[in-house]
Amino acid sequence: MNANDTRHPATLSYEQAGVNYDLIDPLKVAAQRAAAATGAHLAAHGFSEVAASRGESAYVVDVGPFYIASIVECLGSKALVADEMSQLTGKSYYDGIAQDTIAMAINDLITVGATPLVVQAYWAAGGSDWFGDAQRAQALVAGWKRACDVCNVAWGGGETPALAGIVEAGRIDLAASCTGLINPKERLSVGDQLAPGDAIVLLASSGIHANGLSLARKLVERLPQGYLTEVQPGLTYGDALLAPTVLYSPVTEALYQAGITPRYCANITGHGWRKLLRHPGAFTYRIHSVPEVTPVLRFIQQHARQDDREAYSTLNMGAGFALFVKAEDAARTVQVAQAQGVAALVAGTVEAGAKQLVIEPLGITFGTDDLQLR
Amino acid sequence: MNANDTRHPATLSYEQAGVNYDLIDPLKVAAQRAAAATGAHLAAHGFSEVAASRGESAYVVDVGPFYIASIVECLGSKALVADEMSQLTGKSYYDGIAQDTIAMAINDLITVGATPLVVQAYWAAGGSDWFGDAQRAQALVAGWKRACDVCNVAWGGGETPALAGIVEAGRIDLAASCTGLINPKERLSVGDQLAPGDAIVLLASSGIHANGLSLARKLVERLPQGYLTEVQPGLTYGDALLAPTVLYSPVTEALYQAGITPRYCANITGHGWRKLLRHPGAFTYRIHSVPEVTPVLRFIQQHARQDDREAYSTLNMGAGFALFVKAEDAARTVQVAQAQGVAALVAGTVEAGAKQLVIEPLGITFGTDDLQLR
Repeated sequence: MNANDTRHPATLSYEQAGVNYDLIDPLKVAAQRAAAATGAHLAAHGFSEVAASRGESAYVVDVGPFYIASIVECLGSKALVADEMSQLTGKSYYDGIAQDTIAMAINDLITVGATPLVVQAYWAAGGSDWFGDAQRAQALVAGWKRACDVCNVAWGGGETPALAGIVEAGRIDLAASCTGLINPKERLSVGDQLAPGDAIVLLASSGIHANGLSLARKLVERLPQGYLTEVQPGLTYGDALLAPTVLYSPVTEALYQAGITPRYCANITGHGWRKLLRHPGAFTYRIHSVPEVTPVLRFIQQHARQDDREAYSTLNMGAGFALFVKAEDAARTVQVAQAQGVAALVAGTVEAGAKQLVIEPLGITFGTDDLQLR
Repeated sequence: MNANDTRHPATLSYEQAGVNYDLIDPLKVAAQRAAAATGAHLAAHGFSEVAASRGESAYVVDVGPFYIASIVECLGSKALVADEMSQLTGKSYYDGIAQDTIAMAINDLITVGATPLVVQAYWAAGGSDWFGDAQRAQALVAGWKRACDVCNVAWGGGETPALAGIVEAGRIDLAASCTGLINPKERLSVGDQLAPGDAIVLLASSGIHANGLSLARKLVERLPQGYLTEVQPGLTYGDALLAPTVLYSPVTEALYQAGITPRYCANITGHGWRKLLRHPGAFTYRIHSVPEVTPVLRFIQQHARQDDREAYSTLNMGAGFALFVKAEDAARTVQVAQAQGVAALVAGTVEAGAKQLVIEPLGITFGTDDLQLR
C-alpha cells in the first residue's frame, strides 16, 4: 500500500529525522581529547591503557594477566516505538527492548576481543509510576535476564531512578554498561593485525536493531496506517521494527573456541555500512556479496525514498556485525556463526589502496569524507 | 528570613517530594532476584561472583589474580538545580555537576575495597541542541576530566545520545559507570570481617551531595527568594546545594597505602544515616559523636520542618561516607582522611546486639524497620 508516495515525494534523511550531529560533534571531540589525557592515570596503579582502543567501540586497559574492557551504551529511541505499539496492540514489548539495550553494550564490547562478564542496568524512568505497570516492568526484567543468559554474563545490578523533570513522564531512558576480559591477551582485536587479503564476514541482522529509529519513527507519519501498516502480509511495521537486536557474543565466543581470532570487528550501528570504514588504517574494503536486506529495512528505504547510497550509509541493511578474519578462516567463520543460529556470509576482502568501501553489487563507494566520526 | 514558616507549617517529607518507593520497590526486588540467578554464568568463563557483593553498592567478580568491581550510577535530579541557577545567575554549574555524577559511581565502587580504574560517561540530552551551549558543554567536559584527575581514573569514553521524546527538551540525564580492581584481594570489604568493637569513622560531606534533591527542590517553593534565598550571608541556597559531592577514593587509596583496610564501608546517599545499617549482619551501631551539620542541610531541615529523626533518615547531615575500621586503626584513619583534605571523626562503635543505629547525642534510634532496602 503506497498511497502516500505522491503526497510525500521527498527523501527523508537521517538528519531531517532530528539528530543534528553538527551540534554534538564539537562536544564529542572536546570530550575525546580530555578523556585521552586521563589515560596516564592508570600508571599510578601499575597499569596502562591500550592506546589503540581510544576511538574504538570499547576502552581497554592492560592489567597484567589480561585486558579489561568496559563500556556504557544507550538504547536510543527504540522504546518510543514499543510505547506506541503497546497503545495500539495492548502488548508489552519491553522484553525485546531489554535485549536491544544489552545488545548495544555487548556487541560493542566484543569488537575488541572481549568476553563480556558483567552487565549493569540503567533504567531511568520519568517517574515512579513507570514502574507501576507490572506487566511492562516484569517484561523488562525477564528480557534483561534472558539476554544475560544468552550471553553468559552476570547481571551485576544497576540503577532504577525516577527522574521526573528530566526524563519525560511515561518514558524510560535505558542503557547498559558492560565489563569484560580479553583473556588470553592474544584475543585483543584493535586492528593492528588487519592486512590486505583478509576476508570480511558479515553477520545477519534481525532488522533495524536499535539504530536509525529516529528515521523509522519519522517515517510513520507517511504511512497510511502508521505502525500497523504491513511490511509484509501478517507483519506490521511496528512489530518488524521491534525485532530484538541480535546478540553477537555467542558467535565471537564460539569463534574463540574454534581457534579463530578476528583481526578486527565492526559493530554496524549508526552510520550503517560506513562503520566498515572504522579501522584507522588505509585500506580498501571491497564487497562482492551483500546479504539479503531485511524486509523492514527495504520497506524503510522505499518509503523514505532513499537510494542505496543513503540507505547503506544509515541503516545496517541486513548486516549487523562485521568480522575481519584471515582469508583461510573465512569459510569456517561463516560455519561457526551459523552453528550459533546467526546467518553469515563472506562478503568481501580487505585490499591495499585508498581508504574506501566499495560495494560492487550496488555500485556504491564510500570514502573517508563519508565517515568523520570514529 | 522565615516569612513562609506560618504559611507552610507542615513537614515536607521525602515521599511528599515526589519519589514513591512503593512503586519502584517491587520491580527492584524482581530485578534483584533475576540478577542473582545470572551469577552462575561466570563459571562458564572460569570465574565466580563474590556472592556477598549482591546487595552491596558494587558487584564483585573473582577473576583469579584479583577481583573486578563494576557499577553504573545516576546523578539524579541535581542538574535541575544547576539549570535553575544558570537562569538566575548566568553561570554554568556543570563542572560541579560532572563531579557529582562521577562521585555517585566512585563513592559506591570504593565501598567494596576497589580502586577505581575506568569511568565511562553517560550524557543523554533532550536534543542535539543541549550540546550547542558551548559554555555549559565545556564545563561538563572540564569538570568530568578534573574529577577523573582527582581520582586517578582513566576516562574511557562514553555515550552522548540526543534523546528527544525521552529526555525532556533542554535537560540532560547524567550517569557514570565505573570499573575497578580489588588488588590485592585482601582489600575486599564486603563486611564479612565486621565485628563488635570496630570503630565507625565518618567522613565529612560538602553539603547535600546528590541525594535528597527532590526534597530540596520542592522546598524552593517555600522560600521567599527561591534559590537565591541566603543560607548564610553571601551564600545562596542554590549555590550551597550545588557544592560538588566529595570524591572519597583519594581517602580509601591513602588508607591502603597506610596499611589500613576498612572492614566495611557505607556510602551515605539516599536514606541518609539509615545507610549505616546497610551491613547484612545484626549489630548495634552506637554513635557517640555527630559531625557538624553542613549549613545547607540544617537550612533544609529547618525549612522543611523536619525533626532530627526525619532529617537523619533522609539527608547525610554532614557525613558523606562511613568507614568501619578496627578500633586500633580509628585515630589514624581520621588522620589519613584529613591529610587528603577530608574532615573526619571517630563517631561511634559497632556492638553486639540487636540491629539498630543509636545516635546518642540526638536520642534517635533506627531499627531494621527503617531500612528495608539494601
